[in-house]
Amino acid sequence: MHRQIMAQKPSIPKGTRDFSPAEMARRNYIFDTVKEVFQLYGFQPIETPAMENLSTLMGKYGEEGDKLLFKILNSGDFISKVDAEELLERNSIRLTNQISEKGLRYDLTVPFARFVVQYRNDISFPFKRYQIQPVWRADRPQKGRYREFYQCDVDIVGSDSLLNEFELVQIISDVFTRLNVNTVVKINNRKILAGIAETIGEAERMVDITVAIDKLDKIGLENVNSELIEKGVSETAVEKLQPILQLSGTTDEKLDQLEAVIGASEIGKKGIGEVRKLFAYLNTVTLNTDVELDLTLARGLNYYTGAIFEVKAKDVQIGSICGGGRYDDLTGIFGMPGVSGVGISFGADRIYDVMNQLELFPESAVATTKVLFVNFGEQEESFCLPILSKLRQAGVNAEIFPEAAKIKKQMTWADRKNIAWVAVVGEQEMAEGKVNLKNMKTGDQKLVDPEELINILSA
Amino acid sequence: MHRQIMAQKPSIPKGTRDFSPAEMARRNYIFDTVKEVFQLYGFQPIETPAMENLSTLMGKYGEEGDKLLFKILNSGDFISKVDAEELLERNSIRLTNQISEKGLRYDLTVPFARFVVQYRNDISFPFKRYQIQPVWRADRPQKGRYREFYQCDVDIVGSDSLLNEFELVQIISDVFTRLNVNTVVKINNRKILAGIAETIGEAERMVDITVAIDKLDKIGLENVNSELIEKGVSETAVEKLQPILQLSGTTDEKLDQLEAVIGASEIGKKGIGEVRKLFAYLNTVTLNTDVELDLTLARGLNYYTGAIFEVKAKDVQIGSICGGGRYDDLTGIFGMPGVSGVGISFGADRIYDVMNQLELFPESAVATTKVLFVNFGEQEESFCLPILSKLRQAGVNAEIFPEAAKIKKQMTWADRKNIAWVAVVGEQEMAEGKVNLKNMKTGDQKLVDPEELINILSA
Repeated sequence: MHRQIMAQKPSIPKGTRDFSPAEMARRNYIFDTVKEVFQLYGFQPIETPAMENLSTLMGKYGEEGDKLLFKILNSGDFISKVDAEELLERNSIRLTNQISEKGLRYDLTVPFARFVVQYRNDISFPFKRYQIQPVWRADRPQKGRYREFYQCDVDIVGSDSLLNEFELVQIISDVFTRLNVNTVVKINNRKILAGIAETIGEAERMVDITVAIDKLDKIGLENVNSELIEKGVSETAVEKLQPILQLSGTTDEKLDQLEAVIGASEIGKKGIGEVRKLFAYLNTVTLNTDVELDLTLARGLNYYTGAIFEVKAKDVQIGSICGGGRYDDLTGIFGMPGVSGVGISFGADRIYDVMNQLELFPESAVATTKVLFVNFGEQEESFCLPILSKLRQAGVNAEIFPEAAKIKKQMTWADRKNIAWVAVVGEQEMAEGKVNLKNMKTGDQKLVDPEELINILSA
Repeated sequence: MHRQIMAQKPSIPKGTRDFSPAEMARRNYIFDTVKEVFQLYGFQPIETPAMENLSTLMGKYGEEGDKLLFKILNSGDFISKVDAEELLERNSIRLTNQISEKGLRYDLTVPFARFVVQYRNDISFPFKRYQIQPVWRADRPQKGRYREFYQCDVDIVGSDSLLNEFELVQIISDVFTRLNVNTVVKINNRKILAGIAETIGEAERMVDITVAIDKLDKIGLENVNSELIEKGVSETAVEKLQPILQLSGTTDEKLDQLEAVIGASEIGKKGIGEVRKLFAYLNTVTLNTDVELDLTLARGLNYYTGAIFEVKAKDVQIGSICGGGRYDDLTGIFGMPGVSGVGISFGADRIYDVMNQLELFPESAVATTKVLFVNFGEQEESFCLPILSKLRQAGVNAEIFPEAAKIKKQMTWADRKNIAWVAVVGEQEMAEGKVNLKNMKTGDQKLVDPEELINILSA
């Protein structure tokens, strides 16, 4: 190793993060909650390798995505076979093909599609899987955007049933109820958007129209109309769009008004039917989460073919914390057409930020060791070790300071580690066969015998 | 995307693996057990990024290790700044420095050392951390050796106390007791090996001598002696080594014999003292695991400075399934000398193989959904959904087949997913307000009302 490197303060690549024990506890609280709910609904985990063949990844995320893939340099003498002309051409993209065969996964969707196709003969469809793993993107790092971050995806593939959409909304509700985050689930359907565009004679303008609807609250009806015309939507089309821009009432009423306008469009009608059925399912259960139809939801329109979901936190201004939808051709890119699926993805980083900001992490989520035995030396240690051992047998997270340091140091250590209780045994306690148990939060102290100590701490 | 790629059956890079739900359940059983025990002993998790700066990784694993690092190609136009001469020289190693700044972590030790130095002002020492993350090595893939695999490390840094070694042995015992794997923990101490080498006047021959001791059982004393002389160890030295080659009795007796021979060596004496103290600690508790002194243990001699640990499964022929030791200078390479630590690493893949081979995974570890509701159509679905919802509220993992497929298909699906119970509701059951509950293992069926069903399944 070079001397100049030794002298540098070590650091990590920009856009990446280390997670401290305190952060890990909070993150695991989120992940554990999510996993538990996924399993409650019959989903099972899979994992795929961090590295995929570039042939699997390239061309799946658009030209920009290809650039944002982290590529792995081939091992060994990668450069010897590249011809001189090619080298001197200095085309980084072309050269990459010659010296790199693998890349880091960019999301969990493409690896999942690859997985489904690769193991199609072993999988029992419908296949309900979840996957919680990091992904990597060579994006420009900025606040809240990282080059390595966890995705947390749950999908059902191989079933067209709307029952799946219903289950996913319940999962969303269950997860955020458990996490104590107030949310609203917004639901749209790409078929409705297509129906609107078709009805007004602007089938290619689906995105423009959705963006326009989205701006209604901010800039008002007149400005929306002008914008549409500026963008080249015909006056007749804008005219036809008016009732849709002014939908009101309950979800059912909105759907009725919508049907009156776009009911003649086959795809539009189908979309309305799907939304009606999903809301009918939702009406059979009591959810802690608001669920609303939102025609402005234009997430993943190149990708989703049916339902579109987006979840917003009610008490914090932040982008969506969960989203997803139905796609009708997940695996076609790998030569296996006709596999329909629906899935959602939880944004762990944003959920973390919301919960941190609202101080929603419960004590139990950040609890560490329950009790620390202070260490005063060999004799006291001998007295404490059997008690420690019994505590652990009783399932109590417990530890002893590994050396006879000053008590102040040991107490500070316990405090910084957020340990709930400290057990102090000095000469006097030993003589009495007792332990002085201190509650680190209240400061209360109590002289107890070892059995009592175990009872208190394992309660 | 190119057509020829679409036609290919998708695959993953050699040496990497996908994990199916069944494999994940088993792996998570191991990881969850390990984590639970780590926390029982007061260790806390951290995570570090998959990518580290190459300046952090290079030179830490020897020249061979440098080659086995997976390197990430710089993003963007990485080649434009490399000069023509350099390019045409075609030296892959030198070129790598120009076009790559980051690599995938090769182990968890160097990132941990980097972490400790980087956050030295925030960490309360002694720092007890565990870390369970994948690592990547561009090794030639072969049976049981992968290019991506999980490491599972637990370390205490910033404490010289032998109490830490004691705790780690207890952790080993607790983990393998919980996993039901019969093991023996072998303990050595590098200081003893150094003392032996010093005593016989062959301080540089520590490894040769250890290897020789290791062969004793296989090739016999005479052959070992000849081998040592062949390797250039002096006859006098071999002579002096004889009592050590013939140590016998209990650990205490062995240590006494050893002390008689190497007691004059300061380092040797220190090593004996450390082992005595560790065994004295171990004698205060009842472990389910055998623990023995094994002077042949030569693991990581370039690295460890005190205790050396290795754990063998008793009932399967396989390499060590856990190992570690004390190191006196973890962070010196990053300019922070004098931080002593001790740690062990669990070999998840080997533990998995041992448990699979011995069929040690309990039912509960591989259990998935507890009950599947068969789906016969809309009406039956409406009857089942509220029961399903109540089951989930009671914490029972439950699902309904998402569409009204043939019953045979649904039963096969439940069977392949290893679901314990199937609930069948047809016209007759609906009329009676009952559910036909089938135990998938015994085949027993029982007509129960919904409350009874919930009681049975949440028991």
